[in-house]
Amino acid sequence: MTGGDHERRTLRLEIEYDGGGFAGWAAQPGQRTCEGVLTEALVTLTRGPVELSVAGRTDAGVHATGQVASLVTAASVDPTRLLRGLVGVLPEDIAVRAVHEAEDGFDARRDALSRAYVYRVLTSSAPSPLRRQHVLHHPWPLDLALLRRATAAMVGQHDFTAFTPTDTQHVFFDRTVLRSDWIESGDELVFRIEADAFLRHMVRVMVGTLLEVGRGRLSVERFAALLDGARRSDAGPTAPAHPLCLIGVRYPDPRPAAQRPEPVT
Amino acid sequence: MTGGDHERRTLRLEIEYDGGGFAGWAAQPGQRTCEGVLTEALVTLTRGPVELSVAGRTDAGVHATGQVASLVTAASVDPTRLLRGLVGVLPEDIAVRAVHEAEDGFDARRDALSRAYVYRVLTSSAPSPLRRQHVLHHPWPLDLALLRRATAAMVGQHDFTAFTPTDTQHVFFDRTVLRSDWIESGDELVFRIEADAFLRHMVRVMVGTLLEVGRGRLSVERFAALLDGARRSDAGPTAPAHPLCLIGVRYPDPRPAAQRPEPVT
Repeated sequence: MTGGDHERRTLRLEIEYDGGGFAGWAAQPGQRTCEGVLTEALVTLTRGPVELSVAGRTDAGVHATGQVASLVTAASVDPTRLLRGLVGVLPEDIAVRAVHEAEDGFDARRDALSRAYVYRVLTSSAPSPLRRQHVLHHPWPLDLALLRRATAAMVGQHDFTAFTPTDTQHVFFDRTVLRSDWIESGDELVFRIEADAFLRHMVRVMVGTLLEVGRGRLSVERFAALLDGARRSDAGPTAPAHPLCLIGVRYPDPRPAAQRPEPVT
Repeated sequence: MTGGDHERRTLRLEIEYDGGGFAGWAAQPGQRTCEGVLTEALVTLTRGPVELSVAGRTDAGVHATGQVASLVTAASVDPTRLLRGLVGVLPEDIAVRAVHEAEDGFDARRDALSRAYVYRVLTSSAPSPLRRQHVLHHPWPLDLALLRRATAAMVGQHDFTAFTPTDTQHVFFDRTVLRSDWIESGDELVFRIEADAFLRHMVRVMVGTLLEVGRGRLSVERFAALLDGARRSDAGPTAPAHPLCLIGVRYPDPRPAAQRPEPVT
């Protein structure tokens, strides 16, 4: 045996999936999951054991265009050939869109600085057949100014206990929202949020509760009071999963400071 | 019987559908079609016979965001109530997004000045799960300058016999392309075309043949020579239906000239 057989390489995968056919990211016995399907494909192609670390453990039905996962594999695995192999092997509702070699020790979950999601709300009176798997049809009037005031209150570090199911197995419920807003896009209102990390169902409970604010059923003041560790029952309903999409994950720039691009703003 | 029973009203419907579950627009016995499903819903809601006239008889699998149809119905049918009724009755893959009263005698097919379609081509090496029902995945290099030169040659009146199946039942094969181009949109190249009318499969054969030009397999000169009534076998393959979408239909402005908006360009 030569030393070369033991050399390892860390890979970073950028992943897109249509969440409609998956029971979420995380592998579960007897369920079709993103992690399960992708692990199986990687085992076939790399002929070795595969353990994926992922940035966002999305729920059943949630989509991703910018999911990131990492794995450690044999040094003989070529990223470009692996990408081509994955195109041939994966089913049509999940794709690895890029494979890059990462620095030694890179871990997609532990090293992520933040995750960003969008949630699309269609406000027209008629539904949209072509977007039905990607938007919440909400044909009732929404006050965008109220939505935006409540959303601004979420930025910063808060105790989001009210925004996750009571049975959620978290140790800490503090999360830091880095930015969050609503933009108008044609006949849609799109909620965007970036946070260091998210509790289970957190974005969906946020949206369900914000829509109550937008419809005038909950005041901005009462919404803001939920951000100090209120109970789940004080917040609004959990909005459906299918309009939610993980759009990206932020990591520290591995380059020395002098080689990094100037910040845009 | 009073005269009111005989009063009629002409309605214009704006329609969106996901073509994936339909055998095209036109009603056919034993097939699920857009016309069939929509007619059935309108008969239920208006309690009268319904005959639809449509601007674009799209093929099986082709989507529409801007389809237009018209019908003549009883004067007692209220457009706003009809729209609400259709939201409740139609299946989720087809929607009437607006109902307007039209001038007497309006006919969505006969009065249309032009139809506009887009065809989306994804050029990244990996496919896109979330767009798989809306784009053609074409991971081979395309020369955009060649595509654009060939596309520019199509503008104007030509004999498009080479761009429709040989068994197509048309009397005339001349059509006038009003504008056509390719735009870059992220990792997609999007073909856009507006013409007075289209032959069966015309956009799909155009795209199939233009992609041959973009890959360097057919010269722009030979492409241009197809526009003078060449045979179908001289043109390229018929591209798949699912990346094609009817985005809009143009009609004469019914307002007197003095009330029309100034042209933008």
